[in-house]
Amino acid sequence: MSTEINNIEIQKATTSKISNVDFDNLSFGKVFSDHMLLGVYKEGKWQAPKVVPYEPITLDPSAKIFHYGQSIFEGLKAYKDANGDTFLFRPLDNWKRLNISAKRLSIPELPEEHFIEGLKALLQVDDEWIPKKDGSSLYIRPFIFASGNGFHASPADEYTFIIATAPSGAYFSGQLKVLIEQTYSRSANGGVGFAKAGGNYAGQFYPTQLAVEKGYQQVIWTDDTTHEYIEEAGAMNIFIRINDTLITGPTSDRILDGITRKSILEIAKSENIPFEVRKISVTEVVEASKNGSLKEMFGAGTAAVISPISAFGYKDTDYDLPKIANSYGERLKKRITDIQTNKSDDSFGWRYKI
Amino acid sequence: MSTEINNIEIQKATTSKISNVDFDNLSFGKVFSDHMLLGVYKEGKWQAPKVVPYEPITLDPSAKIFHYGQSIFEGLKAYKDANGDTFLFRPLDNWKRLNISAKRLSIPELPEEHFIEGLKALLQVDDEWIPKKDGSSLYIRPFIFASGNGFHASPADEYTFIIATAPSGAYFSGQLKVLIEQTYSRSANGGVGFAKAGGNYAGQFYPTQLAVEKGYQQVIWTDDTTHEYIEEAGAMNIFIRINDTLITGPTSDRILDGITRKSILEIAKSENIPFEVRKISVTEVVEASKNGSLKEMFGAGTAAVISPISAFGYKDTDYDLPKIANSYGERLKKRITDIQTNKSDDSFGWRYKI
Repeated sequence: MSTEINNIEIQKATTSKISNVDFDNLSFGKVFSDHMLLGVYKEGKWQAPKVVPYEPITLDPSAKIFHYGQSIFEGLKAYKDANGDTFLFRPLDNWKRLNISAKRLSIPELPEEHFIEGLKALLQVDDEWIPKKDGSSLYIRPFIFASGNGFHASPADEYTFIIATAPSGAYFSGQLKVLIEQTYSRSANGGVGFAKAGGNYAGQFYPTQLAVEKGYQQVIWTDDTTHEYIEEAGAMNIFIRINDTLITGPTSDRILDGITRKSILEIAKSENIPFEVRKISVTEVVEASKNGSLKEMFGAGTAAVISPISAFGYKDTDYDLPKIANSYGERLKKRITDIQTNKSDDSFGWRYKI
Repeated sequence: MSTEINNIEIQKATTSKISNVDFDNLSFGKVFSDHMLLGVYKEGKWQAPKVVPYEPITLDPSAKIFHYGQSIFEGLKAYKDANGDTFLFRPLDNWKRLNISAKRLSIPELPEEHFIEGLKALLQVDDEWIPKKDGSSLYIRPFIFASGNGFHASPADEYTFIIATAPSGAYFSGQLKVLIEQTYSRSANGGVGFAKAGGNYAGQFYPTQLAVEKGYQQVIWTDDTTHEYIEEAGAMNIFIRINDTLITGPTSDRILDGITRKSILEIAKSENIPFEVRKISVTEVVEASKNGSLKEMFGAGTAAVISPISAFGYKDTDYDLPKIANSYGERLKKRITDIQTNKSDDSFGWRYKI
C-alpha cells in the first residue's frame, strides 16, 4: 500500500528493524534505517523518486558502476533538538555540490525538489531513527551511480539516485596523528579532486593503510607536483593555526569545497578570529612547529565535524602539537554543533527545519 | 545440477540466449554470453570461483562499490582459428596487472589459478559464444569490486570477482580525430593512473564529451602539471611516428602498462623498426607536423587493437596526419592479429591455447 508526503510516493516497510539497534552505542554508518529514497534516470530524465524499504539493489554485471567508477555522493546529518524537532545543516549546499560533482562525472544533474522534498519525506517516514543523544545524529548519504549497462567506456544511459540513512556516533574517537604524504597523491590538476567522486576515495585507501602501518591514522595530502603544499586531511579539509591566525588552503580543482570548511570561515569572520585562505607549505608548518608558533591543526568535514590533530609526521620525524587553552577547534566545533542541534541562535540561516 | 571442469564448479544456465545474437553484426560489449565466472572474497580469503549463469548481482545499498569507487578491471579477448581452436593473448599478463591494480586500490590480490583455470572453464562452457568471423572476437572482462558494506571511508571486507564475456565487433570504426587536452587531466603523479581502476575512466567522460562536441572522438591526455607531455590516447596508449622512428612515452605511475603497447615494442624490435621509449612533448609533435616529419599517430589497446589517428587538434588548430604507404600501424596490427588468431607463427610465445 502506498501513500504520499509532499507528492513523494511512500512504500512502507512491512516490519521495522529499529528494536535491534542500540542507540546508546552507535558506531558510524553500520546500521541502516528502514527506508531509503530511490530515484531512477532513464529515457533522458530523472523519474520521480519514491520512499521505499531499505533493500538490496539488483544490477546487471555489465552495469557501468562496476567498471568505470561513475559514482558520486554527498554526506549530511539530521539532528534532533530537545523538543524532538528535526534539523538539517545547509542541505541545499549538498544538493548544489552533488550537481557540481555530477557535471564533472558526466552524470545527469538532479532536480532540487527530488533531493530536498525526497529527503524531507524520507526523514518524516524514518523520524524514529534520528538519534536524540548528544554526539549522535542520523548520517544521511545521498548517492548517484551508473546503473546502465555495457562494456563500452562511455557514460551510462541509466543512473540510480538513492538517499540512505544510518544512525551514527562519532566518526573518529580521540585525536589524530597524521602523516604528511610525500609519495602518493589524491588528485591531479584538471582532475576530479573537487568532486565527491567515488574513485577519489578508493585511491586514498592504500596510502592511508601504509600510514596506519607506521602508526598514523590519516594522511595529509599534498600537491602531486612538489608535495610541498598541503591540500586535505584524509577525507576532510584541513585548518592550521599559526600564532592566532587560522589558515586553510584555497579550494581548487583538486580540493573539495567542504561545507564545514566554509562554515568555519564564516564563523571565524563573525567572531573576529584572524584567518587567511592561502596556500600553506609544509616547510612553513614544520618551521612553525620548531619555533613554537604552530598552535593547532584540525580536520573539518561533515562526518567528523572537527577532528583535532595531536601530531604530524614528516620525513621520518614526528612533530607534536602543543596542548593549549582557548583552542579554536574546540570553540568552532561547539559553535557549529550548537547551531546544528538548535542549542544556539543561527544568525547565518544555516539550520533547516524539517 | 553442477559439474566440474579442472576443479572449477559449473552451474549451467537452463536456457541459452545465443539464438538471439546476430554474429554477423556485433557491436562492442553489448550482448553477454550465457555464463560468467563468479568468485567471492570473504573471511579473509578468496573463495573458489564457480561458473554460473550470467545473471544480476544483488548488493546492499551501502556496498562500498557505490560510494568509494573501489573497483578494478581487465580486458582481453578470445579468438577462434580456422580449426575452431580457441586462443587467448598473454592472459597471464592480465592476471599480473589485475593484481598490480588490486594492490594500489587496497583490494586483496587474486590467486593465479582462480583467474586462469576459472577463465579456461568459462570459455569451455561458452565455447559457442566465441565469434569465428574475422575482426570479431569474444571480449573478456575480468573485474573485482568492493561488495562489503558500510559508509565508513575505508576498504571493504568483502569483494566480488567476475569474468563476464561479450561477443564483440570493432571498438572504433574508421580513423580517429583527437584533441590534445590542455585543461583536464587523467591522472596525478603518485595517483592511480597506472592501475585499471574504475574511477580513472569516469573522470575521462566529461572532457571527452567536450571534445566530441568540438568534432573530435577522443582526447590525448597530457601531464597534469604542464600539459606539455603526451601521456595516453583516450583509454589507449599512444604511438607517434616521426620520420621512420616509432615513439611512445615511458610507463609511469600515471600511464597504463598496456599489453598491446609492450607487444608492439617487442615486434618493432624483432622487425628492426627504429623505436624510442621517451617523453614526447606536444611542441615536438606540432613541429613535426609542420615540417612534414610526422608520419603516423595511433592508439594501442586490447579493445581497439591499433586505432589510426587521422588528425589532432591543439589550441584551436587542427593538424592532419598524411596518408602514407607502408604504415607502421597497419603492419603492426596485422602482425599482432595474425598471432592472436593463429594465422602466423608466434615466436614470442604470446598465444595461449585453451
